[in-house]
Amino acid sequence: MINILSTLDPDFARKFARIVEARREADSDVAGQVADILRTVKLRGDAALADYTQRFDGYALADEADWSIPREACEEAYHALAPDLREALELAAARIRAYHEAQLPENRDYTDAAGVRLGAIWRPVDAAGLYVPGGRAAYPSSLLMNAIPAKVAGVRRLAITTPTPQGQTNPMVLAAAHIAGVDEIWRVGGAQAVGALAYGTQRIRPVDVITGPGNAWVAEAKRQLYGVVGIDMVAGPSEILVIADGKNDPDWIAADLLSQAEHDPTSQSILITDDAGFARQVEDCIDLQISQLATGKTARTSWDAHGVMIVVNDLEAEAPALADRLAAEHVELAVDEPERLLHKIRHAGSVFLGRMTPEAVGDYVAGPNHVLPTGRRARFSSGLSVLDFMKRTSFLGLDEASFAAIGPAAATLAHAEGLPAHAKSVELRIK
Amino acid sequence: MINILSTLDPDFARKFARIVEARREADSDVAGQVADILRTVKLRGDAALADYTQRFDGYALADEADWSIPREACEEAYHALAPDLREALELAAARIRAYHEAQLPENRDYTDAAGVRLGAIWRPVDAAGLYVPGGRAAYPSSLLMNAIPAKVAGVRRLAITTPTPQGQTNPMVLAAAHIAGVDEIWRVGGAQAVGALAYGTQRIRPVDVITGPGNAWVAEAKRQLYGVVGIDMVAGPSEILVIADGKNDPDWIAADLLSQAEHDPTSQSILITDDAGFARQVEDCIDLQISQLATGKTARTSWDAHGVMIVVNDLEAEAPALADRLAAEHVELAVDEPERLLHKIRHAGSVFLGRMTPEAVGDYVAGPNHVLPTGRRARFSSGLSVLDFMKRTSFLGLDEASFAAIGPAAATLAHAEGLPAHAKSVELRIK
Repeated sequence: MINILSTLDPDFARKFARIVEARREADSDVAGQVADILRTVKLRGDAALADYTQRFDGYALADEADWSIPREACEEAYHALAPDLREALELAAARIRAYHEAQLPENRDYTDAAGVRLGAIWRPVDAAGLYVPGGRAAYPSSLLMNAIPAKVAGVRRLAITTPTPQGQTNPMVLAAAHIAGVDEIWRVGGAQAVGALAYGTQRIRPVDVITGPGNAWVAEAKRQLYGVVGIDMVAGPSEILVIADGKNDPDWIAADLLSQAEHDPTSQSILITDDAGFARQVEDCIDLQISQLATGKTARTSWDAHGVMIVVNDLEAEAPALADRLAAEHVELAVDEPERLLHKIRHAGSVFLGRMTPEAVGDYVAGPNHVLPTGRRARFSSGLSVLDFMKRTSFLGLDEASFAAIGPAAATLAHAEGLPAHAKSVELRIK
Repeated sequence: MINILSTLDPDFARKFARIVEARREADSDVAGQVADILRTVKLRGDAALADYTQRFDGYALADEADWSIPREACEEAYHALAPDLREALELAAARIRAYHEAQLPENRDYTDAAGVRLGAIWRPVDAAGLYVPGGRAAYPSSLLMNAIPAKVAGVRRLAITTPTPQGQTNPMVLAAAHIAGVDEIWRVGGAQAVGALAYGTQRIRPVDVITGPGNAWVAEAKRQLYGVVGIDMVAGPSEILVIADGKNDPDWIAADLLSQAEHDPTSQSILITDDAGFARQVEDCIDLQISQLATGKTARTSWDAHGVMIVVNDLEAEAPALADRLAAEHVELAVDEPERLLHKIRHAGSVFLGRMTPEAVGDYVAGPNHVLPTGRRARFSSGLSVLDFMKRTSFLGLDEASFAAIGPAAATLAHAEGLPAHAKSVELRIK
């Protein structure tokens, strides 16, 4: 039986702080190994990829055809899908595309009162690389969530790397790649794949941005290559915070909490409610549902280790401050007026409004990105968006009049900072 | 005499590739030292800061008053400034503020055809930390360029850390802090200051985002703490690309090239012109100007080591592709119709339009940020903006009708991905 915390407990502040500060991410000591792999890939290119792929994936990159999966194979996988699955993927893709199209930033170009022309132009990066894990974590939804924003941003070349252990591929992932319009799929995984995308090899041209989930080696490779290429946020274990009053069906809320817990033993599910009886009902439902789940073992481990229930006196008065401390990836507001809480919570990756919005609809088909900041990073970072695949060039233009208006101040500051060539470049132009 | 390259040279492609690939950034082997410092600060807090500050800055953090610089001192420094300098800083601040205010992103909130409510809310981070170097690189302009976007974003608390070797402070920097409305200034520098901002100590509360320039230790500390906090881009040596026809005053263009070269021996200045005679004139002007510059030694070293002149046949036809390969921090277009080149160049940090727009006006007073991607990173990253101090929360809300429309597809995908609790959270709600 999980411990139900109450904000009335005189020791609550300390207990809650321990939950906020708990790091569910193991410190993985792979930095040295990853640095070795990256160095080797940079130096030896494809030969290094072939060696690592044989060693780690038991797959031989011998002939040219072994290296990549042709687009035709993706198209075939797409047509071979069960119709309901194909339609679901198409619905998801269309909705993700629409949400991200509305996200495209606007350029600026204006002339201000001093006569200075000012502006900014957003442009896509030339090429993006997307890491797709092999095995259990190879989710077609994840491919769509990463690839579609890149394509909407206008990225010309989208290359996937994915391990194919013993040559095995995932047909759903290939079908999703077809839907998203992926340009290249390379049968390489691990840190070596990330290195290949960043540095380029004989066969794989380098990319500008690398996104996508991966294991500790992949995550560390991205971290080490940050600055050589752009990367998406450092990702950690997933989490959900459900804020629910006592008027919910406890079975629904239990399923919502478990939809996080079933991902991984390090996932975290937290319920905040103003009804202690409801919390106990939810817990009973969780126990029952876990016993029926194919993913029950993972869910049990996660819930027992990291599950939390907090009973408050007043949801609206107390929940927002607790939610901000947790800065959770997913926040469900299962109350009558979710709007009010939405505007009181400052730190959250994505918010799910009302009783009919379980997190799973957002994971798959609602449209917003499911790649979201984890581990309290919603305090300072955002979900994946088209902006991750774009960059902004600012521009300015002066004529003689506007130069006369603001140029001298630039020269004054340049002198004061001890940069005389800066000053001279201005002073030469002053008539 | 510098080597003037020509695109007609049969070996040009190879020579140009060497310039593009040259890394001017030294590999600094400070990762281990920085990791030690960060661990110590995390463990020992203020005691560690006092130790390091005594050792590295020769400054004792003994009494409470030794730790920080009060806002009153900043105000005094402001009033003590020479009037022309104060006015120049105020003009710069006002223009930077106006440009960044126009950058504030818009929230979204709409209901789509399926009846799904969708949107995104941008919010500032709670607290930002700004590193300000001590000594020569303590530029008030840099403080304004970092602090003002944070304040415009709506950041409630802006804390500066800066080393004060032997207790010395820089009055211009303090005055700029007053203008920008900085909330706290801590007399701590180096990796230990970055660690204090990220982890928090007894005196210094942690922040969410850390920006600002620094030496190799500071840069490495930010890199290592990326993910614990948000950081601005990894910064490298500065560079300028000037694209100029033969109708410019060679003295002006020489000064523009030198305004980059005087920053640092690793800075790079590149001229692309369609007039070989003009290139030679510019070089003569550079030699003459360097001999008159107080920063001549640095400029000479930079220009001799990294300066490049490229003569092309046709500026409009050839320059954009070369510029994109270089993806320079600053690009000056000293031609009659800069607009045409602006739209042909895809990768640049900031573009300066026309003969009356030397880079120095952008460094100080034009308004756009002077913190820009260096070392070819304009391929994938952008200058500092209000977005670096904000994060986006997506939200979605379904009612029974919209849930009936898209919920089943989510359940289908959840089953296909082997996530039955996800599916259950949807199926329970299907009437």
